[in-house]
Amino acid sequence: MTKQISTKPLSGYMELNPGEQRTFNALLDTIRSVYEQNGFIPMDQPVVDRTDALLANVGGDTTKELIRIERDDDKTQALRFDLTVPLSRYVVDKYGELTFPFRRYAIGKVYRGERPQAGRFREFYQCDVDIIGNETLSVRHDAEAILMIAQLFTKLGLGTFKIRWNNRKLINGLFESLAIKNPTEVLRIIDKKEKLSEVELVTLFEKEGLVEKQIEGVLEFINSTPEDVAAFSAINVRNETWDEGVSEWLKVISVIEQSSLPRELFEFTPSIARGLDYYTGTVFETELVDYPEIGSVCSGGRYDDLASAFTTRKLPGVGMSIGLSRLFDQLMKKAILKPSEQKTNSRVVIIPLSDSEMSAALQLQSQLHQSNIACEISFAESKLDKRMSYANKLGIPYVVLIGEDEATSGSYTLRDMSDGSEQKLSPDNIVTELQK
Amino acid sequence: MTKQISTKPLSGYMELNPGEQRTFNALLDTIRSVYEQNGFIPMDQPVVDRTDALLANVGGDTTKELIRIERDDDKTQALRFDLTVPLSRYVVDKYGELTFPFRRYAIGKVYRGERPQAGRFREFYQCDVDIIGNETLSVRHDAEAILMIAQLFTKLGLGTFKIRWNNRKLINGLFESLAIKNPTEVLRIIDKKEKLSEVELVTLFEKEGLVEKQIEGVLEFINSTPEDVAAFSAINVRNETWDEGVSEWLKVISVIEQSSLPRELFEFTPSIARGLDYYTGTVFETELVDYPEIGSVCSGGRYDDLASAFTTRKLPGVGMSIGLSRLFDQLMKKAILKPSEQKTNSRVVIIPLSDSEMSAALQLQSQLHQSNIACEISFAESKLDKRMSYANKLGIPYVVLIGEDEATSGSYTLRDMSDGSEQKLSPDNIVTELQK
Repeated sequence: MTKQISTKPLSGYMELNPGEQRTFNALLDTIRSVYEQNGFIPMDQPVVDRTDALLANVGGDTTKELIRIERDDDKTQALRFDLTVPLSRYVVDKYGELTFPFRRYAIGKVYRGERPQAGRFREFYQCDVDIIGNETLSVRHDAEAILMIAQLFTKLGLGTFKIRWNNRKLINGLFESLAIKNPTEVLRIIDKKEKLSEVELVTLFEKEGLVEKQIEGVLEFINSTPEDVAAFSAINVRNETWDEGVSEWLKVISVIEQSSLPRELFEFTPSIARGLDYYTGTVFETELVDYPEIGSVCSGGRYDDLASAFTTRKLPGVGMSIGLSRLFDQLMKKAILKPSEQKTNSRVVIIPLSDSEMSAALQLQSQLHQSNIACEISFAESKLDKRMSYANKLGIPYVVLIGEDEATSGSYTLRDMSDGSEQKLSPDNIVTELQK
Repeated sequence: MTKQISTKPLSGYMELNPGEQRTFNALLDTIRSVYEQNGFIPMDQPVVDRTDALLANVGGDTTKELIRIERDDDKTQALRFDLTVPLSRYVVDKYGELTFPFRRYAIGKVYRGERPQAGRFREFYQCDVDIIGNETLSVRHDAEAILMIAQLFTKLGLGTFKIRWNNRKLINGLFESLAIKNPTEVLRIIDKKEKLSEVELVTLFEKEGLVEKQIEGVLEFINSTPEDVAAFSAINVRNETWDEGVSEWLKVISVIEQSSLPRELFEFTPSIARGLDYYTGTVFETELVDYPEIGSVCSGGRYDDLASAFTTRKLPGVGMSIGLSRLFDQLMKKAILKPSEQKTNSRVVIIPLSDSEMSAALQLQSQLHQSNIACEISFAESKLDKRMSYANKLGIPYVVLIGEDEATSGSYTLRDMSDGSEQKLSPDNIVTELQK
């Protein structure tokens, strides 16, 4: 009758086996711990939100990709497509209860009704940090975000990485000075610099109607690698926007250089633009140096007005985001990450050979728990080899065998599953051994 | 133009302020850590699933309350309403990759389109543990679930609690022996025993067509408090189902009694039925003794066939679930829980008085992080009193002030925000002090 129902998850929805899940969770735990260590406030908002709030500041593809809730009475609900829009609604709603700068992190699922294809997900995790100021927010917080990314990717251990950063005010100042009329389109081309040859770039600029002098000016900037104020002065741009950009650059680089993190993790890269319209100052991307084809694994930047759809109050912010599901998927496909061989957190399975040893088993479990050692009792009534094989299959490193003699003598058999070696130990010594 | 968009979350969707969120997260963390300590495998499945899979085994209210995704091409997607149905799909789908008994936990949001009202949520957390056997599963795992609930509620510290348990086979055996024709309806009445007088109960039984002898038989059982096999023998039921129930009871009580947890936490209660049809053996509920009006805060039981909608394979299981959002809401309303006064995990704000001390501040931050002390640097460019007041408002217990003299001498001012007392300490000693 109902046997033909598919057991597969929906297309575009990731569902992992235990070994994969454990690897995924290890990433998630590292990210969470770095955010927490830096004192960001955890926030958890609804997955379902008002459509008008979600779409207040956006349009185009986002509207098309919105996953909407079907309702007879009221068609205004949808699944959030990022964590920033709900944050903007929240900051206005809870304004009086918040202390600014409001430094929050959020790790949660977001939804986009993209056409399912390899590496694209309809449901995926975003891991976001945002720092929101009330009226003002020091540019130093841009450096804070950049430094935290460096701290995080060092801990994640995914190999060499580089954080490329830029300031949109420099680009805007340049465009002003060159009298470029279609900044958004030119910005999108600049963003593609790493993937294109200079000839291809020039062709695209020409298509957008840029004249030779404009193209030269843009190329001069995006090919530059200014490392001090003098280098900026050498570029022939003079206007307020540009000067603000230089001054912000200086504040950010000053904080970065005072940190003890290796200087080569950070590279000022004038071609980084982050296509999105809402960035207004510092922008940044993170590249895994050995896998540039993955693209940016952590991006963000400064926006001057988080919540203009909801309030006239000015709430500038800087934020960063990791699209974790896609990153995980890519890292697994490249075997940079592998499914965990240990498929559970249990470090030991306690096997009472009969009901009479249950009391000893429960006692040992409680003692291990007090020492924060994850463990489980084998409650199965099957044969010993099957109970041992359970531990083996899950990659649990130890079992403790408690038979009649062991229970009487108080000395249990601790078996190392990696080599089959056994020791007779008291419960206290088992705890000590497992704490090693 | 768009200023009139509401900033409120949708009705029935919980959104907390930072102090509330921190209290909520503390519960979540305790639950997660107990599940992990017991070696349950974490699993995280999509929130959106196939409607036919979600509804394969249910109907009625669940169908009506299902929150469906609006799609033009394909109307078969909806938000999961619990974590058990997706689990049943998963266990069949991943059967070959799992080791049985498959012991998994899941903490996630589920959705029910209930009419919003106080204490009812359309989006809420469930925190579930299930143990799934392949063809067979020892009844001892029922005891495992019950013992873990006791361990968990001891850690949660929500006051005295009691786990009431029963076995549906005893009820079924009783009904068989009394030739009761409408067991589901009678079960629902029994489930209400705690809220009704005996006269009211009898009236309801009579309405269902029970005759005097049947009513007497049911009352005899649900008013009994059997504590040993002899007590069960005294009840005048003799059939296979009943005998199985007694034998299972014996196995469960034997494990419970061998644990070192206080015996009074567990009460065999023949009137606990758990109205749901799919339970087939042990059932249990957890009551906060001082707040019985909250109802059961953690319930579950044994089901003989998890995935009959998807497979002919027999997959018996035992599971438990906490509806955390509702529990949190009730505990907050009763002020058993309070919003956290410390609104962030930061234990200390490091305040460099000028840019020249940024290097010292970053160095100290890195040192504190190495000792797992959550901290943040005050990057604000505002006046000192405003930067101190930031720490104060968030309930952060310490600030470290680094001025020119401090940076030079390497001895910074550690200020205890609770009493304003200050000490001059080296970075090493600050770490030591904060580790206390």
